[in-house]
Amino acid sequence: MPQLNATGPRSDTDAVLAARLAASATATGGEAMSDVQFFDWLDERRRKHSQEVRRTTFADLSGWHFTPDTGDLEHHSGRFFAVRGLRVRTDFGPVPQWHQPIIRQPEIGILGVVVREINGVLHCLMQAKTEPGNVNGVQLSPTVQATKSNYTRVHGGSPVPYLDCFREPQARGHRVLADVLQSEQGSWFFCKRNRNMIVEVGPEVEAGEDFCWLTLRQINALLHYENLVNMDARTVLSCLPDWQHGAGRQTPGIHSDTAVRSWITTQQSEREAGAELLPLREVWGRGWYRAEDRISHERGLFFSIVPVDVVSNRREVASWSQPLLEPHGTGVAALLVRRIDGVLHCLMHARAEPGYLDVIELGPTVQCTPENYAHLPPAARPLFLDLIQGARPEQVWFDTVLSEEGGRFLNAQNRYLIIEADDSVPADACADVPDVYQWVTLRQLGELLKYSHYVNMQARTLVAALRTVAGIAPGPTVADIGVPEIGGTAQGRGAGRADHR
Amino acid sequence: MPQLNATGPRSDTDAVLAARLAASATATGGEAMSDVQFFDWLDERRRKHSQEVRRTTFADLSGWHFTPDTGDLEHHSGRFFAVRGLRVRTDFGPVPQWHQPIIRQPEIGILGVVVREINGVLHCLMQAKTEPGNVNGVQLSPTVQATKSNYTRVHGGSPVPYLDCFREPQARGHRVLADVLQSEQGSWFFCKRNRNMIVEVGPEVEAGEDFCWLTLRQINALLHYENLVNMDARTVLSCLPDWQHGAGRQTPGIHSDTAVRSWITTQQSEREAGAELLPLREVWGRGWYRAEDRISHERGLFFSIVPVDVVSNRREVASWSQPLLEPHGTGVAALLVRRIDGVLHCLMHARAEPGYLDVIELGPTVQCTPENYAHLPPAARPLFLDLIQGARPEQVWFDTVLSEEGGRFLNAQNRYLIIEADDSVPADACADVPDVYQWVTLRQLGELLKYSHYVNMQARTLVAALRTVAGIAPGPTVADIGVPEIGGTAQGRGAGRADHR
Repeated sequence: MPQLNATGPRSDTDAVLAARLAASATATGGEAMSDVQFFDWLDERRRKHSQEVRRTTFADLSGWHFTPDTGDLEHHSGRFFAVRGLRVRTDFGPVPQWHQPIIRQPEIGILGVVVREINGVLHCLMQAKTEPGNVNGVQLSPTVQATKSNYTRVHGGSPVPYLDCFREPQARGHRVLADVLQSEQGSWFFCKRNRNMIVEVGPEVEAGEDFCWLTLRQINALLHYENLVNMDARTVLSCLPDWQHGAGRQTPGIHSDTAVRSWITTQQSEREAGAELLPLREVWGRGWYRAEDRISHERGLFFSIVPVDVVSNRREVASWSQPLLEPHGTGVAALLVRRIDGVLHCLMHARAEPGYLDVIELGPTVQCTPENYAHLPPAARPLFLDLIQGARPEQVWFDTVLSEEGGRFLNAQNRYLIIEADDSVPADACADVPDVYQWVTLRQLGELLKYSHYVNMQARTLVAALRTVAGIAPGPTVADIGVPEIGGTAQGRGAGRADHR
Repeated sequence: MPQLNATGPRSDTDAVLAARLAASATATGGEAMSDVQFFDWLDERRRKHSQEVRRTTFADLSGWHFTPDTGDLEHHSGRFFAVRGLRVRTDFGPVPQWHQPIIRQPEIGILGVVVREINGVLHCLMQAKTEPGNVNGVQLSPTVQATKSNYTRVHGGSPVPYLDCFREPQARGHRVLADVLQSEQGSWFFCKRNRNMIVEVGPEVEAGEDFCWLTLRQINALLHYENLVNMDARTVLSCLPDWQHGAGRQTPGIHSDTAVRSWITTQQSEREAGAELLPLREVWGRGWYRAEDRISHERGLFFSIVPVDVVSNRREVASWSQPLLEPHGTGVAALLVRRIDGVLHCLMHARAEPGYLDVIELGPTVQCTPENYAHLPPAARPLFLDLIQGARPEQVWFDTVLSEEGGRFLNAQNRYLIIEADDSVPADACADVPDVYQWVTLRQLGELLKYSHYVNMQARTLVAALRTVAGIAPGPTVADIGVPEIGGTAQGRGAGRADHR
């Protein structure tokens, strides 16, 4: 049995750890790799990682089939994941009942970042990783991104590098900084969750090919680039211990921690949201149809499931086939923020998605794909969407298009926005706002992130993004944050970026 | 929209609240009702609450039927709860796969205790409540114990008293002290959870018939009586803010809070436990059979489902019929505790039950019904059971038979034990103990109890029980705790109780 109290390379108190993370987030020197070197390295990775993704038909999809009894789309091994049917009933939102296909992947994978001190500064070991669904091939990933099928090597591939750092880490003398199950997209996955881990190691761990050590300052800057820091990296980063509100410094919010938890419990208890897995064949004719080369919605809404063949020179296996979920349209995930009595608050939405384990999780203020609302009456249009889309430039703290998981989703992009609310959004006692919205401080979100299934994937990206700007008080704008332009491969969005190259 | 920051009668800091709770737990005066008056009142309730529970057959079970397509046992309204089938697959424990009936009740009910200051001391409003499954009719319940069917009045009964205190409490000027979803028995319920609430009110709230105000000292003493404080009251009490480790007084444990959470995440991730609801008819012949008057296991193990008719003069409706789950044998739920470096630690078991939402929850060191292991090899006998059963009297801190939920279970009793471990149980680095066990401090359990689905029902009872004795340092025994004998209706177990009557 591993000794849980055997500490890693350092056995800091929480306060010392927060100070070390803060130093990494503000470091202007000591990097293992300069910003210029990083972009050169990334360009090199992009040249070396060839990958071809070709659409195919279900009939030609090697290793996958629709089972005769249920019509579910499954791998012949029964592993990886399956596409099944789902019936949803809810008392909330414009549509009280619907059917949909959904990805079922009951295994819990590991998303892990290794952290190490170099030149006295904490660095994260990041990976240049290709995924078939990525719009641009290579993105910056966690050290390890492994399903159980990966690391038990069901598909007979090569071992996952650095996986050992996350298996019995204490027994190996490593220190666990974060380790928590978090949900993934509840509209696309049924009860999917992954283990988000951050582990501090000693100097014995070095960066292999495709890996690089970056300070938190560097990663924070890269988060402002389009489609660069991948979803798995963002969710793990959001689970980092809160370095901006030192241990013990209990920045008060307008609602106590107990009141915030009580609000969440109220939303879980009073909303009815029943979701039941069904054979996939039960969704045909209920808004969905199956063609040779896709499963789609009759109105072309939401998403399709499409079969693809992948040939890669960098994966554990050189070629494979799989279905991917292809969303229709680019989503919007936007957080309204506001300083209230000097403390930064985020307007969180208690959001029900059919795939969540416990009814609701806290999502961004707005999370939607505007095109999906085109067929609904104006009253069904998401609250605050107009306000977000009409924000003035000086209200925009963050505005970057980022990708969702490229191993399951094809070209899935969301425009992530952090918008400073003006006086049109009440700071308190939102008499005209439904009680599914509430102001929560950034510190309170950090506390909730120590526990499972309170903050959803999109909100976790925005927590990571907000931490890149929230340190700069008061009222920073994107223009305040000089980040280097990335060389030719992905363009940052928004004005005012300095070019460091 | 209710203002979350509108505080209740007092807007204490956490530290002040802890001090007020501690004062209630040690109060030797100021009670609204003396101990003697309480027992007289309880005897009076018992005389007034007549209830007759009569076994019947499924054919005669009014309002309930086995549905033709699935064989599920359901109410004709589709509400309340249903008995369905479950297939369980696990990589852990002596049996890798089994089928069983299980209770499915997707609604989230409210278990709520109202708290109020009387004579300067906090009191809890407790109810004398009759449930059909109770061994002794009346037990001491929370102020409110209401399913959604109850409070939306599906069965056409009378309104639930005090329910309004728990609906938008802040808007009514009440203060929420705790509000969290917690699981119920995962072997008997599929994904059942209830809302555990504690709300402080002002002097406008008074005790009606069947209700009484008790200090925490009084309730703590009553917890040592057999089958008196009911399951719902115990789970709510366990969610009270920790009054024994004042806010900010971070009593260190041998494992950091991060390490404890990481251990839980490891157990959730690495254990395989798949449970799938099935039509009830699929369990026939797979270990279970259906007779006229019961659903039972072929070897007489585990539990039966039995139909009963109830006639009561005290319920919202005067008579009704329902199935109850009748466990076979009295269970054992035992916690090994130990002071390590002066800090009280509990040996928690990461326990997988098929009905849990997220694979495992922390249970007591031992939780089993010894009879169910009779047909299995000795190696399958629960670890630590022999040690618990062989404890010397001076090791026994708590030893009381208590009932589980009488609204769903018939004569379901567990012997709850808190045993001080001696040197035969290693305080650290349990090299010879599987890593499903870990030492966790009482303060850490209190932190976990602020969040959902970390500490199971049986462990919550033991947390409530441990708080009745843990304040008395060092090494209290039951003999140290003088509690009044209850008058003739339920006998306390164990030696050394003083008779205050």
